[in-house]
Amino acid sequence: MRCLPPWALAERALTEDSLVAALRAIVEAPALATGLPSRIRLGIGDDAAVWQPSRSHLSVVTTDALVDGVHFLGDAMAARSVGERAMAANLSDIAAMGARPVLATVALGVAPGTGEAWILECYRGLAGTAARFDAYIVGGDIVRTPALTLAITVVGEVSPSRLKRRDGGRPGDVLAVTGPLGASRAGLELTRRSLPVAAAVEAEARAAFERPEPRVPEGRYLGASVHVRAMMDSSDGLSTDLARLARASGCGAALAHVPIHPAARAVAAAAGDVARDYALDGGEDFELIVAVAPRAFGHLAGRFESRFGKPLIAIGRLEAEPGLRLIETEDGPSRELIAAGWDHLSSSR
Amino acid sequence: MRCLPPWALAERALTEDSLVAALRAIVEAPALATGLPSRIRLGIGDDAAVWQPSRSHLSVVTTDALVDGVHFLGDAMAARSVGERAMAANLSDIAAMGARPVLATVALGVAPGTGEAWILECYRGLAGTAARFDAYIVGGDIVRTPALTLAITVVGEVSPSRLKRRDGGRPGDVLAVTGPLGASRAGLELTRRSLPVAAAVEAEARAAFERPEPRVPEGRYLGASVHVRAMMDSSDGLSTDLARLARASGCGAALAHVPIHPAARAVAAAAGDVARDYALDGGEDFELIVAVAPRAFGHLAGRFESRFGKPLIAIGRLEAEPGLRLIETEDGPSRELIAAGWDHLSSSR
Repeated sequence: MRCLPPWALAERALTEDSLVAALRAIVEAPALATGLPSRIRLGIGDDAAVWQPSRSHLSVVTTDALVDGVHFLGDAMAARSVGERAMAANLSDIAAMGARPVLATVALGVAPGTGEAWILECYRGLAGTAARFDAYIVGGDIVRTPALTLAITVVGEVSPSRLKRRDGGRPGDVLAVTGPLGASRAGLELTRRSLPVAAAVEAEARAAFERPEPRVPEGRYLGASVHVRAMMDSSDGLSTDLARLARASGCGAALAHVPIHPAARAVAAAAGDVARDYALDGGEDFELIVAVAPRAFGHLAGRFESRFGKPLIAIGRLEAEPGLRLIETEDGPSRELIAAGWDHLSSSR
Repeated sequence: MRCLPPWALAERALTEDSLVAALRAIVEAPALATGLPSRIRLGIGDDAAVWQPSRSHLSVVTTDALVDGVHFLGDAMAARSVGERAMAANLSDIAAMGARPVLATVALGVAPGTGEAWILECYRGLAGTAARFDAYIVGGDIVRTPALTLAITVVGEVSPSRLKRRDGGRPGDVLAVTGPLGASRAGLELTRRSLPVAAAVEAEARAAFERPEPRVPEGRYLGASVHVRAMMDSSDGLSTDLARLARASGCGAALAHVPIHPAARAVAAAAGDVARDYALDGGEDFELIVAVAPRAFGHLAGRFESRFGKPLIAIGRLEAEPGLRLIETEDGPSRELIAAGWDHLSSSR
């Protein structure tokens, strides 16, 4: 989220992708001579890491940290919503691997002024959201911090044949998302200022922001299809995450259709904003992005809609040419699109 | 660590054990009707949680958070040491289960003024310490925080027959530790003030504080013995952790011998402190505490000493009567001992 002006870093602007590259070199250094242990199947760079505890099983693990004032608004949100959002963000990363969540650990940093009642209510949100997806909080740590902080780790499991990474896409694959985007950003706008929108719109946008729904069943379903070649979630914004999926797959992407959530349209109109920007760059929607073998897309999308009662929405294609292009209309010219979603360290937004 | 005055909490003093009990009730509520899923074998309350990904394997997971100014001194410690200590604390929890570490995730909160060089050097400490014990950092998150924060999760594995919990002790079991205690506390004293001690003592105490050694091989070795009935680490101080092991096992404990590290003796003498308090209450030593079937202790201790070149030090016995008693001499009177180690939230120390 971009709720507060970001802090300045001392030496120079860090961006998450460049720092991650440097950290990746460090953590992989010990294995340079011998290679990663064979049980570790996937390290830094996807939604979750993967290891193999036994021949028939893969485990996946993801960690997300959230800080008051940066990723959520402790003053403006109910404690339970803070917990629900934090857990949903992690479950979304598990869903993006095609896995199902098993357990979670929570490192809670308690700020001055945070009372026991707040902590317990936040945990009710964490535990309730986990339980809805058959996952349980099994442990963690509680420490004192200047700002309320939640660092959550979720472990999931998946059979080796169903694991989906972000690097399996090929040129020509159909890109699709599991739902329209921008509602979470619309909900954030409504926590910042009063806007003249219908009560139903306000409720929908706020729910998307405060209680986002991780697409765990959808991820399991899509993970079971051999025609889904790459998958990730859209938590940092479609423009940023689509660029990541394309780059990881050695491709570029042409985006022909940006599906905008109706609540995002209504709130953006009331705010004088461009609704498409909410959908492209807003982030925190937790819809899944998939790259699907082109000949299989129609059949898969039909089955998906029968199963979930909502469409698997085609948004474009992977292409051989690198970069991310937005095609304004089906026949019109294309333009380069700047990835403008959420970078956890950059101050550019 | 007790480096800075703790922050006050708003509503009332929280203690970790009481808050954990309340949180445990919340996270277990969803499973009250159906019970925990059978794959989850051990939840909140031990050094690590345990689940069973397949019939022959157990996985263990632990999460620890460290905050600058509370758990380490970012200004007074090298970035690499901060990373080494943080990783060691988590590996120690895995060791305490009899397991071996496999992978780690790191949630890093970057404070204003933290440069990229610091972050990279901290990661070198994290990754190097993990690699020494055949574990690898596979992912994590980087966020902005007001104070530098590290939340680390380590996953390990253990065969079902070797898993050690803290609740398996029985009255009469011999209590023992894998090494003398108090050196980490002595090192902390030396970072706070200049004391007239020999250079060798200073080096040893500082190393114990800055680069504590998780007892991973010792934990694996002791985990393999059926005569070791309970195990945990001494990270929060012997008085606190021994009381926890005894209580979890439905016992009390009589402590007949407090093994004091020579560096703790020397630093305490120079500081005018009581060396035994460093060993009893200092914490962060990461020695393992075990409860061993009494008839097997002599043989096990002999084999341990052959294997590791250091004694498995008997410190007392589990007893049927609850509470923690310190026996001043073998023949002298006993007195009640107050658990005065590290409570992560209490301000009592």
